[in-house]
Amino acid sequence: MELPDVQSRRIEGEFKLTRVGVKGVKKPIEVVRPDRRVPLVLSIDAYVDLPSTLRGVHMSRNIESINEVLDLGVRQEVGSIEELAGMMAKDLLDRHDYATYSEVMFDCTYFLERASPSGAKCLENYRLMTKAVAERDGPVSRTIGVEAIGITACPCGMETTRKLTEEKLGYAPPELWLTHNQRNVARLFMDIPEGSDIEADELIDILESSVSAPTHEILKRQDEAEIILDSHMNPKFVEDVVRDILATVVERFSDLPDEVSVIAQSESEESIHKHSAFAERNTTLGSLRS
Amino acid sequence: MELPDVQSRRIEGEFKLTRVGVKGVKKPIEVVRPDRRVPLVLSIDAYVDLPSTLRGVHMSRNIESINEVLDLGVRQEVGSIEELAGMMAKDLLDRHDYATYSEVMFDCTYFLERASPSGAKCLENYRLMTKAVAERDGPVSRTIGVEAIGITACPCGMETTRKLTEEKLGYAPPELWLTHNQRNVARLFMDIPEGSDIEADELIDILESSVSAPTHEILKRQDEAEIILDSHMNPKFVEDVVRDILATVVERFSDLPDEVSVIAQSESEESIHKHSAFAERNTTLGSLRS
Amino acid sequence: MELPDVQSRRIEGEFKLTRVGVKGVKKPIEVVRPDRRVPLVLSIDAYVDLPSTLRGVHMSRNIESINEVLDLGVRQEVGSIEELAGMMAKDLLDRHDYATYSEVMFDCTYFLERASPSGAKCLENYRLMTKAVAERDGPVSRTIGVEAIGITACPCGMETTRKLTEEKLGYAPPELWLTHNQRNVARLFMDIPEGSDIEADELIDILESSVSAPTHEILKRQDEAEIILDSHMNPKFVEDVVRDILATVVERFSDLPDEVSVIAQSESEESIHKHSAFAERNTTLGSLRS
Amino acid sequence: MELPDVQSRRIEGEFKLTRVGVKGVKKPIEVVRPDRRVPLVLSIDAYVDLPSTLRGVHMSRNIESINEVLDLGVRQEVGSIEELAGMMAKDLLDRHDYATYSEVMFDCTYFLERASPSGAKCLENYRLMTKAVAERDGPVSRTIGVEAIGITACPCGMETTRKLTEEKLGYAPPELWLTHNQRNVARLFMDIPEGSDIEADELIDILESSVSAPTHEILKRQDEAEIILDSHMNPKFVEDVVRDILATVVERFSDLPDEVSVIAQSESEESIHKHSAFAERNTTLGSLRS
Repeated sequence: MELPDVQSRRIEGEFKLTRVGVKGVKKPIEVVRPDRRVPLVLSIDAYVDLPSTLRGVHMSRNIESINEVLDLGVRQEVGSIEELAGMMAKDLLDRHDYATYSEVMFDCTYFLERASPSGAKCLENYRLMTKAVAERDGPVSRTIGVEAIGITACPCGMETTRKLTEEKLGYAPPELWLTHNQRNVARLFMDIPEGSDIEADELIDILESSVSAPTHEILKRQDEAEIILDSHMNPKFVEDVVRDILATVVERFSDLPDEVSVIAQSESEESIHKHSAFAERNTTLGSLRS
Repeated sequence: MELPDVQSRRIEGEFKLTRVGVKGVKKPIEVVRPDRRVPLVLSIDAYVDLPSTLRGVHMSRNIESINEVLDLGVRQEVGSIEELAGMMAKDLLDRHDYATYSEVMFDCTYFLERASPSGAKCLENYRLMTKAVAERDGPVSRTIGVEAIGITACPCGMETTRKLTEEKLGYAPPELWLTHNQRNVARLFMDIPEGSDIEADELIDILESSVSAPTHEILKRQDEAEIILDSHMNPKFVEDVVRDILATVVERFSDLPDEVSVIAQSESEESIHKHSAFAERNTTLGSLRS
Repeated sequence: MELPDVQSRRIEGEFKLTRVGVKGVKKPIEVVRPDRRVPLVLSIDAYVDLPSTLRGVHMSRNIESINEVLDLGVRQEVGSIEELAGMMAKDLLDRHDYATYSEVMFDCTYFLERASPSGAKCLENYRLMTKAVAERDGPVSRTIGVEAIGITACPCGMETTRKLTEEKLGYAPPELWLTHNQRNVARLFMDIPEGSDIEADELIDILESSVSAPTHEILKRQDEAEIILDSHMNPKFVEDVVRDILATVVERFSDLPDEVSVIAQSESEESIHKHSAFAERNTTLGSLRS
Repeated sequence: MELPDVQSRRIEGEFKLTRVGVKGVKKPIEVVRPDRRVPLVLSIDAYVDLPSTLRGVHMSRNIESINEVLDLGVRQEVGSIEELAGMMAKDLLDRHDYATYSEVMFDCTYFLERASPSGAKCLENYRLMTKAVAERDGPVSRTIGVEAIGITACPCGMETTRKLTEEKLGYAPPELWLTHNQRNVARLFMDIPEGSDIEADELIDILESSVSAPTHEILKRQDEAEIILDSHMNPKFVEDVVRDILATVVERFSDLPDEVSVIAQSESEESIHKHSAFAERNTTLGSLRS
């Protein structure tokens, strides 16, 4: 028996659509790295465009694509979710012959082993995001994004506190580093040029070296004091965090072409306010180099 | 006593930043309409750009701007949050003389009185978003966004069910309209051209007339049946919802210029899946007209 | 024409249910205080129990109750949401004659004018929660809950840092108060005994006086330094915050009976960790007094 | 060098605390089942009580407990997170000799392979929660909780629609099953008696058999029609869902003792309203049996 294929109906005088598909599909996968297997729970969005002449997209094909590409990824030991997203974007165009554009996004929690100042090892959590866009007969463009939580100590609060103390007492010891500090959520997004790889772990390193200090799940008393001292010797505005991310990106990725887009963000969950402070640069490697 | 102004320090060899400011500031306001006063609780983001020569933005000025513009808005009976956002974007450039760009975003829950099919009146909730961008010595551009929750009944499920029943029983009554239906979250964003006004209420009307049926907080049994019948006589894919929004936008806003950007979205929280279906068109009025 | 009343069908051999109703109903209201009108956007849950002999609850009656009681509240200038919740719990039992129990919960953002150390006034946001429970032929019991965001400075980090500096330099200046600090979310829930009133504003005062320092939306440089100094002269663990809330509750509410339940919580969004620290006491006034 | 141990300081005249610890710790683990390895990303809360004589809890011990018990769990191939939570609750009392009570909570996304009506296999996602409570020199009590998303079709809408059609047309075909349907989030929590095991998979089966129909990620047209027909032949209020869960629990767990607590919930994200309908029974196996 043939069932009606409502989506495939030809229509006339209609608008084409930019993106149509499934959103928030959850899937567990395992990425195989040289030294370990990384289990991840992905939240996946997968879209294609729709021409003005067709009523609808066959959305179950997007789920089939997700399942088959993820399975293939495990069997072929694909080592990154950026590669998987690129494979899926291409595969979507194969499955939807009427589409000229496809878009895939992954979002997940990711863990890396980190050592506290005294050497205690612990898995710290980060956020990993990726986006792949394919155009028919064109290249697949991929973006990698990471998010890391660190601490920032405020430079302005530190200098004002010192000045006020000096005023009151006649002097202020140079060690008077009092200021407010807080959680800082830093993010970095970069295009991955064709034929290149950008490692999430390297981007996370950049984020953690750009805040006042990285944070740790387990800290014994001496560790805690060292992170406090480190962050106070390294006070940063959200503006400083973004600029330091950008400076390291320029230095580390000197081999990547000028057109690579770069977005760096820092959001400080202010301890002295109920709102956040936020800074962002949205640009290209070329602009940063000039 | 003069306190150190760390933010104003001149720096060299640094990167400029795209946007710096405060995020998630909560404020209650009251918008004065010809026929009523509308209390709103806004979540506000307010940013300016930062030149490469200055260390930081004076963020407390953004809060001062928020407070003073919202106060002024109440005293002058400003009738829309889009106008308030535009005033605030301009005001930010006055307060930050080093900035060349400013950006303000508001997000809030909004209520409109609606009648159920039998005429029972109730306040229904919607989401209202706005964004204003100002450039120094340039115009202020404003965007209005609305979100409404409705119901969609699936056209594909309906036809397949009828076909399968026909196959099994030898016939299918034309009233066999069985299908899955679910919550649909529709959104519409439009640029507001200078000198024009776009009413949130009108955009919400467009969204509610583009889903299978609007939803209501209070429904007596007969109301409930009418909404069920309405939505089943009007089955829609997410693709249909977006196209119907676009068609009404083209018709209603024939006086607006071609360059006005339009984004229409429909997200169906599928009752037969754990994920959503999603469709979007991101374009201009001119493209829709051609 | 009579429509079938499926909910009222008599059933046999079934289970009774503890609570049945509507959840997440959004409503704007205005509470009338002696000195001001307070607009609030409530999220409302309203439930009754269901006997084993009936198939379902008539849920539209819960919406009718919400609408009518809120309207009445505005007309009668009811001055608190706790009173409104109590009225609604009673009204639900009137509308559902088969029910013996009803429960109403409100949750909203609430604003109070606060002055920064230098006297700048600003509306700060808080969270207000309330719960009312009624039993047929019994009293209505009401609970009030408030949440406030403040700053806590860690006492342990402060002492360890001082000790380590002393070790390294041979001395540590007493002003070496360096520590980590962060956002602290404090909450207090109390039963309201019949015939008594407990003011949300007073509970918020208790929370803000129990953290290291309250936070403000707008802070000029000198204000910022004062909050930093205040919080460092007043370092607190989450345990200290909860105990200080409890001590003030015992002192301020000496006229309330022993059986009044009290829940005090403090959650510190740790700046040196990615997780939170949490402390709670769940008890009665009587236990606290003994 | 000995660092100050601020937490261990003896204090006087203070309040004891009900629970103190860490909240929202994220950890990846792998549970080893007879037939497969299940990777999970846990969100963990771990608390102990605090006597009135001590200033604070040593929170890093909670993180050590989490890390060591999870490691041990992997090495010993512990097959359930309920067992891990119980081990951790005991371990916390060993590490905090001043505590008399400990509490551990896990929350995670969980996947099971399911077949659609036509046999296509897919991983469906669920939510798994567990809580373990230990008292010094007492037993460890454990609770298991599961959440599953299904579809419910409304019985009231179906009968009213049929009646109205009959009124209008003089007859209504019995196949006129039109109604609204929507996502239903069902939850079941049960105490695990000492010496017993309750399998999450079995509880998820109970939830999925209690809604109008389970949902699937991938559905071809015929599958979709079958789920539509199934759910319309099996219309359910939230009240029905909860009662059907309870009936199956009583039947399946006839070997468990009367004192086992049972909480069953059903939340319907109504397609004809913007709010949810909700039903709950909070009871014991004994009450359900009587």
